[in-house]
Amino acid sequence: MLLWSTKVPSVIAILSGGVGAARFALGMSNLVDSEEISIISNVGDDEVLHGLHISPDIDTVIYTLSGAINPETGWGLDGETWRVMDALSEYGGITWFRLGDRDLATHLFRTQLLREGETITKITERIRRRWNVKPKILPVTDGELRTILYSEKQGTEHRLSFQEYFVQNAHRPEISRIVYEHSSDARPTDEVLHSLEVATVIVIAPSNPVLSIAPILSVPGITDLLQRRRDRVVAVSPIVAGKAIKGPAAKLMAELGLNPSALGVAEYYCEIASAIVIDDTDSSFADDIRSLEMKVAHTNTLMNSIEASTHLAEVALRLVDENLH
Amino acid sequence: MLLWSTKVPSVIAILSGGVGAARFALGMSNLVDSEEISIISNVGDDEVLHGLHISPDIDTVIYTLSGAINPETGWGLDGETWRVMDALSEYGGITWFRLGDRDLATHLFRTQLLREGETITKITERIRRRWNVKPKILPVTDGELRTILYSEKQGTEHRLSFQEYFVQNAHRPEISRIVYEHSSDARPTDEVLHSLEVATVIVIAPSNPVLSIAPILSVPGITDLLQRRRDRVVAVSPIVAGKAIKGPAAKLMAELGLNPSALGVAEYYCEIASAIVIDDTDSSFADDIRSLEMKVAHTNTLMNSIEASTHLAEVALRLVDENLH
Repeated sequence: MLLWSTKVPSVIAILSGGVGAARFALGMSNLVDSEEISIISNVGDDEVLHGLHISPDIDTVIYTLSGAINPETGWGLDGETWRVMDALSEYGGITWFRLGDRDLATHLFRTQLLREGETITKITERIRRRWNVKPKILPVTDGELRTILYSEKQGTEHRLSFQEYFVQNAHRPEISRIVYEHSSDARPTDEVLHSLEVATVIVIAPSNPVLSIAPILSVPGITDLLQRRRDRVVAVSPIVAGKAIKGPAAKLMAELGLNPSALGVAEYYCEIASAIVIDDTDSSFADDIRSLEMKVAHTNTLMNSIEASTHLAEVALRLVDENLH
Repeated sequence: MLLWSTKVPSVIAILSGGVGAARFALGMSNLVDSEEISIISNVGDDEVLHGLHISPDIDTVIYTLSGAINPETGWGLDGETWRVMDALSEYGGITWFRLGDRDLATHLFRTQLLREGETITKITERIRRRWNVKPKILPVTDGELRTILYSEKQGTEHRLSFQEYFVQNAHRPEISRIVYEHSSDARPTDEVLHSLEVATVIVIAPSNPVLSIAPILSVPGITDLLQRRRDRVVAVSPIVAGKAIKGPAAKLMAELGLNPSALGVAEYYCEIASAIVIDDTDSSFADDIRSLEMKVAHTNTLMNSIEASTHLAEVALRLVDENLH
């Protein structure tokens, strides 16, 4: 595929979770004027460890768009060192959540500003500028929002924060329910609402629907707004041939009684999205998806290169942006 | 001087501040069975930066006794790296308080345990054990205690935390008063009270009297106990020939209307100490000090080697411990 010399004249909002969303956003920034892109980030994965406020989804997007990301892992910084973690392990401290030395500076900086009363939106803006990232990165809320997972063992319910589930327990526990704590008190920021109002296309990135996108949708006002603008909303399925490209999306959807397939993703989003991009291997679901009153396109959804990410972004855009037909 | 092959049979409590106290304690641990030494540490210098709870006085003692201290600076770890601080400076973050990478692990570990509800006494115990330090290190209180300095500029009072005064402003501001915040609500720990009760000798280390020792004395119960045990208490003057060996002790004492000399130190402590060790260069003060009903010894108080530190500890012990006469 070609890298655009003239960028597509769209205004884009992307609902964004982890690594998949970051790679998708990178493709989109190759296609559309970066300053016309707003990335609305989940903050339900945020965790306080060692007293430090860590925002993994925000940082993964910023590091990816800046080109500083570790390409092997999809998270953390390339060429990172681990002096602090190594010393912490000598104390028997908490090291299951690996924080590299340079990455730690981000968390120190964020935590200090939070303590000084700054909002996570303004702090994110400062972090973004330091990394010369052009798209706006917008935490969905400046309030608290925490994705909590419950697993059952012998009749007893166990409570896990997102990172305890995802990293510490390598998303092995069987989950009975998920709660987006504090969501009823959370308010979307003005920046988020504005970006969703003015977008010509709103993309639900190929992130885990129940872990990464649902927390965003749980913030009062977001789902209503998307329903109202449904004709501008396109989702990209993170599930390919019944499996998640990365992470536990399919397993978790099944545990929660959802259909762990591209069709299940379409069903999950059909109230708020009028279109969906699915993988070529799932093209047999196209008719079932159309019966949900959704447009559907299929393509290769594996983002193993910037060209592939850009192509996927293009397919998503073309599905809802009449300027591109 | 000789390193002791048979250790002196004393039970020691040391009131301890920064670098001078740490070096003195190292000398004492060379002289007396280390397990019979309790180091009662000031916590008024503690600071929360980047969300991390930093206890510089405690860490300086532990790093010094473990042999891990940077011998050039007297603080921080030898062979330290600065990856986090370098990255933080790219954000324009707070870097005037230099936190090395390995040192940061100490603060992460402490902060996490504090958040889990652990006391600073128990946390310090865990840090001490990791560094194989034998003397007990006892924070004077598990409560809050903050040394706050006020300077006046054109009639307006400026409030500085200890570290803002000492590090950020390199102890240049002229100080009009010092407050040991929260001291009236602070309680000495049981471990501190016990160590002061059972000690055969209590040493006030050559630390800054108004910055490092006074916060300890400000905790209710400590001064009373020392007055009662005055005959077992010996101070070591941190002031030599009218100057502090290190830091602003003399300047600060003068600003606060105290006599910035070994005699002034004796006057400051004469209610709670029955003896003082002063530098050879200050021997002319001996008679004036004796008139305060204090025993006095003079020696070389510069601790530029472990032998010098051990010698200084020995002189202090001999002054009050009849076992040594």
